[in-house]
Amino acid sequence: MDISHCTALLRTALDPRSIAIIGASENPNKVGGRPLRFLTQFGFRGKIYPINPKRTETQGLPTWAALEDLPETPDLAIIAVAGQAAFDAIDACGQAGVKIAVVMTGGLTESDPVNGKQKEREMVARAQAHGMRIIGPNSQGIANFGTGAIASFSTMFVEVPPMDGPVGIISQSGAMSVVPYGLLRQRGIGIRHSHATGNDCDVTACEMATIVAEDPALKVLLLYLEGLPDPHRLAQAAAVARERGLFIMAIKSGRTAAGQAAAQSHTGALASEDRVVDAFFRQHGILRAKDMREMVDGVELYLKGWRPRGKRVVAISTSGATCVMAADAIASTGLSLANFSDGTVAKLREALPPIALPNNPIDLTGAMLTDSSLFGRTLKALAAEPGIDAFLTGLPVSGAGYDVPRYSRDAAACIEETQRPFLCSAAQPSVRDAFRAQGVPTFETETDAVQALGRFVAHWGLVESMNRRIAAGCIPYVGVCETLAGEASMLDEAGSLALLAKAKICTIPHQECDSEESAVHAFQAMGGPVVLKGCSASVAHKTELGLVHLDLRDETSVRQAWRDVSAAMQSHGLLPVRAIVARMAKGIHEMMIGAHRDPLFGPVVVFGAGGKYVEALPDVAMLLPPFSREDVKSGLASLRMAPLLQGVRGEPELDVEAFVDSVMRVQDLMADPLQYIDSIDLNPVILRPVGDGCVAVDAVVYRTG
Amino acid sequence: MDISHCTALLRTALDPRSIAIIGASENPNKVGGRPLRFLTQFGFRGKIYPINPKRTETQGLPTWAALEDLPETPDLAIIAVAGQAAFDAIDACGQAGVKIAVVMTGGLTESDPVNGKQKEREMVARAQAHGMRIIGPNSQGIANFGTGAIASFSTMFVEVPPMDGPVGIISQSGAMSVVPYGLLRQRGIGIRHSHATGNDCDVTACEMATIVAEDPALKVLLLYLEGLPDPHRLAQAAAVARERGLFIMAIKSGRTAAGQAAAQSHTGALASEDRVVDAFFRQHGILRAKDMREMVDGVELYLKGWRPRGKRVVAISTSGATCVMAADAIASTGLSLANFSDGTVAKLREALPPIALPNNPIDLTGAMLTDSSLFGRTLKALAAEPGIDAFLTGLPVSGAGYDVPRYSRDAAACIEETQRPFLCSAAQPSVRDAFRAQGVPTFETETDAVQALGRFVAHWGLVESMNRRIAAGCIPYVGVCETLAGEASMLDEAGSLALLAKAKICTIPHQECDSEESAVHAFQAMGGPVVLKGCSASVAHKTELGLVHLDLRDETSVRQAWRDVSAAMQSHGLLPVRAIVARMAKGIHEMMIGAHRDPLFGPVVVFGAGGKYVEALPDVAMLLPPFSREDVKSGLASLRMAPLLQGVRGEPELDVEAFVDSVMRVQDLMADPLQYIDSIDLNPVILRPVGDGCVAVDAVVYRTG
Repeated sequence: MDISHCTALLRTALDPRSIAIIGASENPNKVGGRPLRFLTQFGFRGKIYPINPKRTETQGLPTWAALEDLPETPDLAIIAVAGQAAFDAIDACGQAGVKIAVVMTGGLTESDPVNGKQKEREMVARAQAHGMRIIGPNSQGIANFGTGAIASFSTMFVEVPPMDGPVGIISQSGAMSVVPYGLLRQRGIGIRHSHATGNDCDVTACEMATIVAEDPALKVLLLYLEGLPDPHRLAQAAAVARERGLFIMAIKSGRTAAGQAAAQSHTGALASEDRVVDAFFRQHGILRAKDMREMVDGVELYLKGWRPRGKRVVAISTSGATCVMAADAIASTGLSLANFSDGTVAKLREALPPIALPNNPIDLTGAMLTDSSLFGRTLKALAAEPGIDAFLTGLPVSGAGYDVPRYSRDAAACIEETQRPFLCSAAQPSVRDAFRAQGVPTFETETDAVQALGRFVAHWGLVESMNRRIAAGCIPYVGVCETLAGEASMLDEAGSLALLAKAKICTIPHQECDSEESAVHAFQAMGGPVVLKGCSASVAHKTELGLVHLDLRDETSVRQAWRDVSAAMQSHGLLPVRAIVARMAKGIHEMMIGAHRDPLFGPVVVFGAGGKYVEALPDVAMLLPPFSREDVKSGLASLRMAPLLQGVRGEPELDVEAFVDSVMRVQDLMADPLQYIDSIDLNPVILRPVGDGCVAVDAVVYRTG
Repeated sequence: MDISHCTALLRTALDPRSIAIIGASENPNKVGGRPLRFLTQFGFRGKIYPINPKRTETQGLPTWAALEDLPETPDLAIIAVAGQAAFDAIDACGQAGVKIAVVMTGGLTESDPVNGKQKEREMVARAQAHGMRIIGPNSQGIANFGTGAIASFSTMFVEVPPMDGPVGIISQSGAMSVVPYGLLRQRGIGIRHSHATGNDCDVTACEMATIVAEDPALKVLLLYLEGLPDPHRLAQAAAVARERGLFIMAIKSGRTAAGQAAAQSHTGALASEDRVVDAFFRQHGILRAKDMREMVDGVELYLKGWRPRGKRVVAISTSGATCVMAADAIASTGLSLANFSDGTVAKLREALPPIALPNNPIDLTGAMLTDSSLFGRTLKALAAEPGIDAFLTGLPVSGAGYDVPRYSRDAAACIEETQRPFLCSAAQPSVRDAFRAQGVPTFETETDAVQALGRFVAHWGLVESMNRRIAAGCIPYVGVCETLAGEASMLDEAGSLALLAKAKICTIPHQECDSEESAVHAFQAMGGPVVLKGCSASVAHKTELGLVHLDLRDETSVRQAWRDVSAAMQSHGLLPVRAIVARMAKGIHEMMIGAHRDPLFGPVVVFGAGGKYVEALPDVAMLLPPFSREDVKSGLASLRMAPLLQGVRGEPELDVEAFVDSVMRVQDLMADPLQYIDSIDLNPVILRPVGDGCVAVDAVVYRTG
């Protein structure tokens, strides 16, 4: 099947003209009964064909004994039978020309990773033989509340009535396809899509995302992923989303070793290095949520059409304590308090009672109790202030004397006028209800509100930085990543340094030596303190074997070092004895640059603090190519050691541009198909003051073929 | 007034026999009307005396024109009049022999930090003249739902009906005295105390805490503090709480610079160094909550009488995805997944269907739908497992087929049998309601549950470590901290090193020199690389002035260094020229130990990673004396650099015991009243392999008097 045909088949699943339910049940609480109930209840406009050899009518609908008996070929079939019957149903569907089947049947990979996986392969083979596609098995089903195509048996749609809306949810897990549905519906938010792809034997959650992302009604797409075996599909979905201005938020669970073990046990999901997943999401403008609360709290903000221009917030409250806690939360979330222009301060002085100061946060004090117009007047005074990117208002306590309906209308007017993000926090449900009724996103506490705003602003930041990257020519790769054929082998240090030097990465001046005398000559030629290192393509960590001698200042020391290295190499069988004599590098900080190929995500570049403790005290940033110089600088700015790069304690500013050059050249090396580079490890890279560049002192390169 | 009398007066406020309301109002929504309404509505058993010269009856109660007219002296007076009338009321109350007044009057320090503060001092003076105490001014009032003494005008008690319970809340802010009340009442939790102390001109929030902590009904006490000018009072409250096994959680807002600025603007609260506040709370077993959600989420856990024995959690769910996310959350929160003994595994194999594995987390799979006893059987299989410290169960989706009432009863039975913490997460309110009705603490998401459990376990950890510290003889200080009189002055390095050596803190071997020749002699006597440092009592940071020359290996270098230092000192007027010649210290890591006196909290000891970047890249722990060796080790374990102390990359294990010795000796030095030490800064302290100790290389000591 060609790809566009495959995609068309999958697209059918969201808007089929007809649906057959194989294993249709009269009991609306059974797996084969509930989709039937949902299809009739939630307004599916196409044909519904219950199939059950034992019945002539099911839930009031005429029922057929077999697929072959139907008056037409259904677009989509729900397979709600178990065991061998499911395989037979797939065959029957395929033969009949069904485009896509939702296989609810369980007991496959999720129960038995080896035999189950084998059976799933057979399912796919049977379906592909007839050009049919499969969602599942072990799928709770798919639900499109825009078309009423609810091929799902989730109890959640009984418990919490659906309402169509601009949110899509895709999850491998059935539970996580409906938990965000339930939480968001409780907040009054409508959901268009809630799809559970189950074991992903054919259609994956990420492929589903490429189709759902096309829905013009969507404003935000939420993903729950336990495994991510096909990042290229998610890259494609992100590309579709980018075209449309659709935001994607995702939980990729298994963030921790404990979580990965649980995921392995649950779905056999292969572990990916979690920071590579992070880097991949960032590259594609996808905000990664740590948990369900992060994913659902703040979805309202995406639905308002707001575009935050920055991080500067004004906080307004009737309570000084709320002001203080809002200020703490803002500072802790990477946002900042807006400064007011003189004009705004003057307007505030007019609007506020004498007791209240035109500071940010603005404490409206108890004056709100006697002056219900104060809140609206204050918002009006702020509306024209260009230094405000978002409004946060906290009404911790309300009741008699507080004209909450009026405040909420004033908030709505401010939103209408400014088109800027506006959030409200209130401990009392009645206050939240009043603001929500006016379209204001509401939260229980000021911290909840600030954190939701922080994520929203961060997501915009991700997307904007992605757009700048693309404008700079770094188009994210959306294909399957190719791995290098053959086993990788290590170059010795001389070879590694030569390769890097050819790629214009500054390396330490050095000479290769094969005898004590040549080492002494090299020392004399360099005329300063040198380092002598045993050179072998079999040893990556030389220090532990005693192959590194630093700060040699005279001939005697060089001779002794040669003899020690020579003895150590001979005792470890590292022959012939060769060494590098290199000038001792001077600089301010030890950095590192590394790169390797992830089997799923392709080339990965890492850079940051170098030296001996790279593993013990990691302080690095990771990027997936193609990335820009700006990305490298953002990565450097995210390091713990970032303050040192400006120069502290009388040190000069460091040559960050030169370091960025080197990172970009490592990216180029990894991208060069003729280099066959599997991995690069430059550590330390000595960073020097501005103008003096940086220099790689130690290098290990692995090459394939 | 002696202190015990003062305290007795304050105690009266919580259970007065009679209350006068000066400024009583017929309108139950006015400041002078609402307390009257609350006192009658919420069952105050004492006498109520409304006072208002314009009325004979208020809200159905006989009303007096003035305090002097009352048939008896009320224990407590509510002053609900403004401006000068409030001062007159204080005089009248004092003269009549009222024990304590709740002053609701506003417009004082919170409006005008200078004049307002002055007026408050006058209030206190007038009250003290008659032996009366004041809560407020600007107090929203105090509320004891155990006695019905509701001297408060908060609207929250109208909005959310009270219920007596084992929780106390004390806050300077009115809003924050009732926001936790509202949030907890919405969760069905009863509140005994909700007190707002306002501007704390006489009775402070912390003094209030010393009284409230005596209430035997309380299990948890929640504090909101914007200022903490009297930590000794909070230390006293913590001591009362410790005696009783009462847990204290506190928000101290102004955690950030932005928050401190807002607090300064709100209440004129003086900023304390935030990490000193952290150290103080830890010392006294008080869990610091970052925000309101951290304070209220999980209060249920404190009310159950559970005592977590450790951090090992079993997670059980019907959803594999919930299992994965629970595992991630557990690993991210400092908790761990419990391992099962063979016996438990065998029991689980019997209890679980073949499809479910006896792993932790336990994925019960869809089998729960057809077997409602599965959940209870599983809990029974786990009940005897000694490796489980807490149970976490997640029911992300429920509905037809799920016998939730039975599950909740099974959970209650497990709690009854094991007496261990048991938490439930469920996205659907109906499921949470069912479990809550059985006394199981419930949460919306698995992460919320895990985080609440994590805080509860951490709080127990704090308390247990405090109890061990006290058992080791380190009794927290509960008095007002005394500051040293006079201005502190710096010792020169030779003087500092001598003082430390006398205190048995290992310092670098060195000689003081006053000429080039004496420096050369010192070098020759030491016979190895040396460092030469200019020595002056006027310069703390010598490196920046060029006064430090390292690694001098020959006489020529020593002479040159002397001349350079000499020139630098002369050019900066640092005469006479003197220097220290010290052996170059060799070791593995640079550490630091510092100590200073906080004006409110007293001596503070800091230790951790040393070297040049102590300020730029801080990695230190802080303790308030008296602390134990175990505290120092916990502090070291909390450092980012902690992994290095074990020795990494072939390095030997380091002499942590010797470093702990030095920290303990610095504590002793700060405690010694004859030393008059204002501050100590040892950096670097070179840490060596086990058996080789550590050595302070550089020292700056400030002494007073």
